[in-house]
Amino acid sequence: MNCEKKVSNALIRRLPKYYRYLSTLQQMRISRVSSKDLSQRLGITSSQVRQDFFHFGGFGLQGYGYDVASLLQEIGCILGLDRTYNMALIGAGNLGQAIAKHSSFEKRGFQIIGVFDANPHLIGKQIKGIDIQHYDQLEDFVKRHSVDIAVITVPRIYAQDVMQRVVDLGIKGIWNFASVELDVPEDVSIENIHLSESLMTLAYEMKRKKEKTQKRSKPL
Amino acid sequence: MNCEKKVSNALIRRLPKYYRYLSTLQQMRISRVSSKDLSQRLGITSSQVRQDFFHFGGFGLQGYGYDVASLLQEIGCILGLDRTYNMALIGAGNLGQAIAKHSSFEKRGFQIIGVFDANPHLIGKQIKGIDIQHYDQLEDFVKRHSVDIAVITVPRIYAQDVMQRVVDLGIKGIWNFASVELDVPEDVSIENIHLSESLMTLAYEMKRKKEKTQKRSKPL
Repeated sequence: MNCEKKVSNALIRRLPKYYRYLSTLQQMRISRVSSKDLSQRLGITSSQVRQDFFHFGGFGLQGYGYDVASLLQEIGCILGLDRTYNMALIGAGNLGQAIAKHSSFEKRGFQIIGVFDANPHLIGKQIKGIDIQHYDQLEDFVKRHSVDIAVITVPRIYAQDVMQRVVDLGIKGIWNFASVELDVPEDVSIENIHLSESLMTLAYEMKRKKEKTQKRSKPL
Repeated sequence: MNCEKKVSNALIRRLPKYYRYLSTLQQMRISRVSSKDLSQRLGITSSQVRQDFFHFGGFGLQGYGYDVASLLQEIGCILGLDRTYNMALIGAGNLGQAIAKHSSFEKRGFQIIGVFDANPHLIGKQIKGIDIQHYDQLEDFVKRHSVDIAVITVPRIYAQDVMQRVVDLGIKGIWNFASVELDVPEDVSIENIHLSESLMTLAYEMKRKKEKTQKRSKPL
């Protein structure tokens, strides 16, 4: 399928949202969706939705809306979800184990094929049928298997070293959960899940809204 | 402490990054930092760093850099980290348990004081010394304790109902891990951790960089 469209950074951030919601609709056997429904569900204006879909050729029919299946296919193709990704997870602590057990990634084609840790108490145990191997085995594993993405769930102090190692092994995608900014080479992609930062942003928003409410309720 | 400064949305997204890195420096007993160091570590230009800090009154001294402790205090105050937050976690599955066990939030003042689930096999078990209670107990719990933030780690299909309940109970902050967009009232703040979306964005970035490399290596 040809989906080599130029897509802006802002649109790229919206595509996974569209994809997720359209997947839900497909699971519910809903075959058509209006820009109004998408707009309400995703907090994006209707005109933005129409503009986005027009851009990559998803034409809606007046009064009929958009075809869910073809939109899903088109967006999936743009996002690179028309293939599978093999992932190696490094750091089998609480968070790493929770990520490894999370079922929704597999459905999208992201499969964890190896789990690594340096803690001798964890080596040999299994997560979802996968043996936890010693981190020293990573190089050998990567030579024998095609690993697309490294999931880094080690404590922050080890993250930069682990990142350097996976980059040296030729892995081009990093999904980082360590709360540290990692320097990656230009040809390597990285996505960060910064839990603490998200909580801090939430705290700020709560503070801001509280101040707003207090100002409103002050007597004139 | 007075830190009622107007802060742009873009700056707000950078503040938690500054705060995280400055905390690390403080732990390492480093008392001064240059805009250049911050710039390199956080992927923000030096001039942007200087502009940001100037904005909220963190003055650097030529050749001496910024004082880590006072920057931390100022940024912490702006973010609302000069107080503690009580959190109730709803959904004690793998991800919920991992979040509850995560130690780094407590250090920042975010403390989980209650854990709830509807699964009878989990009720009465403990996570970090906290009993898992039945979800039906949430209302009673919220009446007896001050809960600032609800952490939603339930499966997607239950998320909207849980959100509605916590909002009805007067909780003003939601940290949502369910992969669904939740509609919240204006006075409620929400931060989403959308794991699947992050992976999809990563897939897209990898695809884009691969295409770039392939184009470059094509013979003229």
